[in-house]
Amino acid sequence: MSCCHLDSPAAAGDTAFTVDASRITFGRGCIAELGPRARGHGLSRVALFGDPTVAGLPIFAAARASLRAAGLDVVEYTDVRVEPTDASFADAVAFATAARPDGYVSVGGGSVIDTAKAANLYASHPADLLAYVNAPVGEGRAVPGPLAPHIACPTTSGTGSEVTGIAVFDLLSMAAKTGIANPALRPTEALIDPDATDTLPSTVVACSGLDVLSHALESYTARPYTRRPVTGPPERRPASQGANPWSDFGAREALRLLGRYLQRAVADGSDRRAREQTMWAATLAGIAFGNAGVHVPHAMAYAVAGLVRDFHPADYPGSAPMVPHGMAVIVNAPAVFRALADTDPARHLAAAGLLAGRGDPDAGAEDAGEVLAAELVRIIRALELPNGLTGLGYRETDCAALVDGSWPQQRLLQNAPRDIDRDDLAGFFGAALRYW
Amino acid sequence: MSCCHLDSPAAAGDTAFTVDASRITFGRGCIAELGPRARGHGLSRVALFGDPTVAGLPIFAAARASLRAAGLDVVEYTDVRVEPTDASFADAVAFATAARPDGYVSVGGGSVIDTAKAANLYASHPADLLAYVNAPVGEGRAVPGPLAPHIACPTTSGTGSEVTGIAVFDLLSMAAKTGIANPALRPTEALIDPDATDTLPSTVVACSGLDVLSHALESYTARPYTRRPVTGPPERRPASQGANPWSDFGAREALRLLGRYLQRAVADGSDRRAREQTMWAATLAGIAFGNAGVHVPHAMAYAVAGLVRDFHPADYPGSAPMVPHGMAVIVNAPAVFRALADTDPARHLAAAGLLAGRGDPDAGAEDAGEVLAAELVRIIRALELPNGLTGLGYRETDCAALVDGSWPQQRLLQNAPRDIDRDDLAGFFGAALRYW
Ligand SMILES: NC(=O)c1ccc[n+]([C@@H]2O[C@H](COP(=O)([O-])OP(=O)(O)OC[C@H]3O[C@@H](n4cnc5c(N)ncnc54)[C@H](O)[C@@H]3O)[C@@H](O)[C@H]2O)c1
Ligand SMILES: NC(=O)c1ccc[n+]([C@@H]2O[C@H](COP(=O)([O-])OP(=O)(O)OC[C@H]3O[C@@H](n4cnc5c(N)ncnc54)[C@H](O)[C@@H]3O)[C@@H](O)[C@H]2O)c1
Repeated sequence: MSCCHLDSPAAAGDTAFTVDASRITFGRGCIAELGPRARGHGLSRVALFGDPTVAGLPIFAAARASLRAAGLDVVEYTDVRVEPTDASFADAVAFATAARPDGYVSVGGGSVIDTAKAANLYASHPADLLAYVNAPVGEGRAVPGPLAPHIACPTTSGTGSEVTGIAVFDLLSMAAKTGIANPALRPTEALIDPDATDTLPSTVVACSGLDVLSHALESYTARPYTRRPVTGPPERRPASQGANPWSDFGAREALRLLGRYLQRAVADGSDRRAREQTMWAATLAGIAFGNAGVHVPHAMAYAVAGLVRDFHPADYPGSAPMVPHGMAVIVNAPAVFRALADTDPARHLAAAGLLAGRGDPDAGAEDAGEVLAAELVRIIRALELPNGLTGLGYRETDCAALVDGSWPQQRLLQNAPRDIDRDDLAGFFGAALRYW
Repeated sequence: MSCCHLDSPAAAGDTAFTVDASRITFGRGCIAELGPRARGHGLSRVALFGDPTVAGLPIFAAARASLRAAGLDVVEYTDVRVEPTDASFADAVAFATAARPDGYVSVGGGSVIDTAKAANLYASHPADLLAYVNAPVGEGRAVPGPLAPHIACPTTSGTGSEVTGIAVFDLLSMAAKTGIANPALRPTEALIDPDATDTLPSTVVACSGLDVLSHALESYTARPYTRRPVTGPPERRPASQGANPWSDFGAREALRLLGRYLQRAVADGSDRRAREQTMWAATLAGIAFGNAGVHVPHAMAYAVAGLVRDFHPADYPGSAPMVPHGMAVIVNAPAVFRALADTDPARHLAAAGLLAGRGDPDAGAEDAGEVLAAELVRIIRALELPNGLTGLGYRETDCAALVDGSWPQQRLLQNAPRDIDRDDLAGFFGAALRYW
């Protein structure tokens, strides 16, 4: 384990890191604690968010029942769009503004949790949608005050959105994903009930699990916090502060658990231990990336999802073209890590070893990129995901547009372990076209 | 690693665990963030707590300067008693009640941080001192509302008090240590600046480091959360909820770091990396035990510290008899772990391996207790700490009184991996009299 961040701050880099975490409860059946916990936050009228699929599931009924049993007034919004857009966010904001709840509960995957975050933000502090969106796409305006309490109950395993201050959406006018990253968005607490995963289709387990895997891998290999140039005042350190001892050990544990359980969780929906451990890994990786930041594979994913032509995956609702977030991330990962491993070969080898369930691979530093890329490709194939960008319908001639689509994600690109320019991105997209 | 809590809840046990953590900032020089962070909490008049020694150190001056530079009105209380008592808590409460600050900053070891917690609690919600103290010694009354913001800046490595909802003191009338354990006491945020450790005497590094070691070991070997009988409503799960996957991995990392760095940190005050890593271990162990709870060695320590006859350690102020907390804990540890290892030999062996900087020891389950006890005794001797209770001036005839003094610590005793009765305690104290 190469972990010498603590005592070698770079001349211009930061010398400290800040870790923020909200309260989490994890365990089977804990959704029953929702009502009393909502009351504990002093709530009386709760907006319960779901998507049309989730709204029909037992976990959603259990959430509603617990809230009602605690004497809360519940107003439901179940029109969340899977992979939300600016238009779908606006619809949720309109609902919240009219319904005037004093708190929010989200029951669903990242799409639902992120939509509830946005509804809470814009209903609490009304503004044009782009106002709080990260610059340069949006204005990156500061959130003027606290939001209403929000209890997030994830049902996928999963984005980690229940512990992050991030909300992601598709900006239709730019055909690109973008997001709002602000500590104010972090849910007040999270109830993570693995019973929710019983009904997850295996494609969703695979896609969200690979998103988690890349959260962990990108946090672990991000530019160390000691090399982040301090721009703002230190007490406003961004969540994308780079790899640090805290995120490192959450990321490592998530990689270890995913290496052991993800394939089992996808292959067999009745393997409850595997699904539970995968969900725990998702939370750990969320805590890690929420305090370190992701980098290039996620930056590229914004364009991969935004420019989709006619791909539509099994097990996802509707028939409109869309690439699930985790799929849009993982197609880039082997190409990126192969190219960046030389920034810290020991870390990249350690990650490959954790995923493979072995100790550090017996390979030289110069092979680190190849070893990790091969391990990622092995997992992608085992989970039957598309063969790179071509598997999603992209062609070599699309690479320029993909570069344009990901270049605005400077917050993420600057969190890479070395400087990334447009030529680098073009190279990564080219290398991500096909893996086998 | 034996980590199967997640899928084998006991019939009557809990099925979920809750993790709470406050914001922490870790790194050299971060004390300079104190003023802006205090302002960020909306403070204007801050009570700055220290003990007479700490008040003369550069870290305290840096804290004061940062607060003043941020335009805050600072009132100082530097009379904290090292190893506080009910009388010294009452003095601090009287100060806070008169000074009427709108927030608290503690700069010091556990003694200072705990005193600031108590001052904040009783100045915010006045009551008889025993009102909020844990039953059966106190009334265990619920805290009626929020406290003022409190930024804790530890200067030892250290109790982890900066991340726990616990304040410990000596109840003079009962000649026993006791405490207040309530989530409301958890500091709002912590600034952990390893520069503070430059001035720490090596005895203090040794004592506080062994306290940390036992926090990690006791959290790791506590009764699993799945075996804690659910008594109150689940949303009021206690911090002493037992070992869980979250505390496990913080505890393991703390043990690994202490095994590697504690002896170096004690032996050589100029070994900045060792002191820094020991401080990081203290925070990790604090997060672990703050969400799992400690057990028998800490329960016994309350009596060992409370009944001291004439022992006084080097490097601690004054000449009154006293046993530093970490010393009072660690003298019990080899005896306890030797006796309890059969509740989960794999975990106890893993802990010994982490401390020794090796993989799991090549020993059979039946030897787990002996292996771990031997490793602990080796560390105690290397750090030149007393040889068991006799080294602190206790005799065999004191054991009955020590049992009486620790028996009230039921909150901790019930967190042991198996039921503990008075005879068990007598056996542990007897076995802790002398180790070599
Ligand atoms: N905020 C963050 O920190 C963060 C991080 C990563 C990704 N994201 C975003 O989250 C979204 C993806 O979230 P996701 O991967 O959790 O999936 P999702 O919320 O998009 O849901 C995927 C599909 O699974 C269904 N589903 C969800 N839970 C189910 C269950 N228990 N049983 C059966 N079906 C279920 C949904 O109805 C949907 O059809 C993307 O928009 C992504 O950009 C956010
Ligand atoms: N609240 C909790 O969660 C918790 C946990 C464990 C222990 N405790 C309590 O904390 C107390 C022990 O705290 P501790 O071990 O941190 O030590 P401490 O606060 O008692 O300090 C020990 C000695 O070190 C000195 N000192 C502190 N920092 C120094 C520095 N940087 N340089 C030079 N000298 C310094 C102090 O002046 C004192 O003389 C006990 O009362 C114990 O019961 C509380």
